Amino acid sequence: MSDMPRHVRIKEVGPREGFQYEKGAISLAQKISLVDALSATGVSSIEFTSFVSPKWVPQMADAEDMVAGIGRAPGVAYEAIWLNEAGLERAARLRDRLALRPMFGVAASDEFMRRNTNRTVSERIAGLPGWARRYQALGMDWLDVSVMAAFGCNYEGDVAPARVVAVLEDVQTRAHEEGSRVGNISLADTMGWANPRQIKSVVGVVRERWPAVPIKLHLHDTRALAIANVMAALEMGVDSFDSAVAGMGGCPFAAHKGAAGNVTTEDVVFLCQELGVETGIDLDRMIEAGQLAERVVGHPLPGKLKSGGNLAAYRARARAAAVA
Amino acid sequence: MSDMPRHVRIKEVGPREGFQYEKGAISLAQKISLVDALSATGVSSIEFTSFVSPKWVPQMADAEDMVAGIGRAPGVAYEAIWLNEAGLERAARLRDRLALRPMFGVAASDEFMRRNTNRTVSERIAGLPGWARRYQALGMDWLDVSVMAAFGCNYEGDVAPARVVAVLEDVQTRAHEEGSRVGNISLADTMGWANPRQIKSVVGVVRERWPAVPIKLHLHDTRALAIANVMAALEMGVDSFDSAVAGMGGCPFAAHKGAAGNVTTEDVVFLCQELGVETGIDLDRMIEAGQLAERVVGHPLPGKLKSGGNLAAYRARARAAAVA
Repeated sequence: MSDMPRHVRIKEVGPREGFQYEKGAISLAQKISLVDALSATGVSSIEFTSFVSPKWVPQMADAEDMVAGIGRAPGVAYEAIWLNEAGLERAARLRDRLALRPMFGVAASDEFMRRNTNRTVSERIAGLPGWARRYQALGMDWLDVSVMAAFGCNYEGDVAPARVVAVLEDVQTRAHEEGSRVGNISLADTMGWANPRQIKSVVGVVRERWPAVPIKLHLHDTRALAIANVMAALEMGVDSFDSAVAGMGGCPFAAHKGAAGNVTTEDVVFLCQELGVETGIDLDRMIEAGQLAERVVGHPLPGKLKSGGNLAAYRARARAAAVA
Repeated sequence: MSDMPRHVRIKEVGPREGFQYEKGAISLAQKISLVDALSATGVSSIEFTSFVSPKWVPQMADAEDMVAGIGRAPGVAYEAIWLNEAGLERAARLRDRLALRPMFGVAASDEFMRRNTNRTVSERIAGLPGWARRYQALGMDWLDVSVMAAFGCNYEGDVAPARVVAVLEDVQTRAHEEGSRVGNISLADTMGWANPRQIKSVVGVVRERWPAVPIKLHLHDTRALAIANVMAALEMGVDSFDSAVAGMGGCPFAAHKGAAGNVTTEDVVFLCQELGVETGIDLDRMIEAGQLAERVVGHPLPGKLKSGGNLAAYRARARAAAVA
């Protein structure tokens, strides 16, 4: 485990992933209360809304109100996502209050890409120049590239690590042609296909090809291996993860069949704590935010620390008892 | 990962751990239906009831009826537990229908031992001769030793690996004095304290001291690291685990605050499948048994494969689509 990072950066994506998923209406005030609670945990980045069409995702129609309403803690990057140019323009108008990132998402699976964007992977990459130029106009000459379905696809099955590298090669070629570069690579296990061995394999080949480009993982817990996959990534020295407080963004139970949220933030913070890896996050506050998330969505969420509790408290109690 | 075992043996403990935990009454017929479903999965061992006082654990008052009622699949060991001599005698009367094991449980924490049995660890080990002689009379000249709280204790805090070895040394010394030996060692993370690094450390020191004695792990998922701990154990070559279908035996939600069941059987089988490690278990049938378990207990259980589904089915569909 010699590659274990000393510090891990966590991006909290629970509000963005979670709120869009809920069938019941959640009030703006409730949403803001959760983002504000997360702001107090020490997490460095919170992805809290999406600039998407209210026609398709009515739960995110309040994106501008969210931006206006949340408190702003020093040192926290407040992020949002968009899927098309109209969304980017909405976000860009609020750039003094948002940490804009030059996102470019692509999939390692044609069929997944097609079902999500009505384009093949090649067609998606052919559209890169427009994004690169718009981001350059906003002062960003790089792309944060996210590869969805990087570990497998419900439609196409297993995805070879070489396929991930090939997609990234194409992205880089196009980016360079436009005078941009690949700034970060996010490998997303969008449908919960990854296992720990595969994490090591894919991270290994991507890092071998782009040793200087930071790698982030975005891991869904559809099949319960997400935390084991985080551990495998830590052993590979990966120091950047998306995660969702309380495991928001899906629920393993009947009402939300088949879907599951991102790996639970408290679980990742707890794992890091136990391994001596810094996250800058106050685990107790993150656990409280998880309990709040459960009240806000109004149904159980999968994260276990909410009820299991932080071992730090048990250790302190045991020490006190030993002294007494 | 060169130590990865080729075959893993799983003991299904969901019915034993789970039924005692439920507040609502579960009928004998429902209990039997779940054991029968598990018998059809290919699992080699099912721990399905406890011979304990109906005064303290009324949910297990039907132990004899369970033994009489369950179907008996060839090749499946049907196991039960007991906590005192009276329980062992009840089980011994049914030995033609039960796979008796010479269990001897001890904790690595005095305070946990005291709260559970009103004895210190030393007092518990002082009582070993009576157990050893009774098991010898039943034809078993060894002990299956289970070390509870082997990775930490809510009362005493962290447990050093050396403490686990010291407890096992004492057990072995007493066993040898009685003409018995240590046949198996089960390391139990009773209160969910373990992390992957610690798993490797404790398994490492125990195996170094007793290289010929098989090690089994019994991991509770109180703080969400159980599956990552299984992965760490697999990397150490551990090939024997307890697990609970659907994660029975606790629930991360409000009604069962703080407790959590064993690592979920489907998760372990799925992890092994993805790593190419044989379990002999039909994952689809185990997932169905997990769905049945949820209906039997009448509330959501934590296992995610119940909704996430086996990747083998997605792979088959993707192959069929590629051919078409």
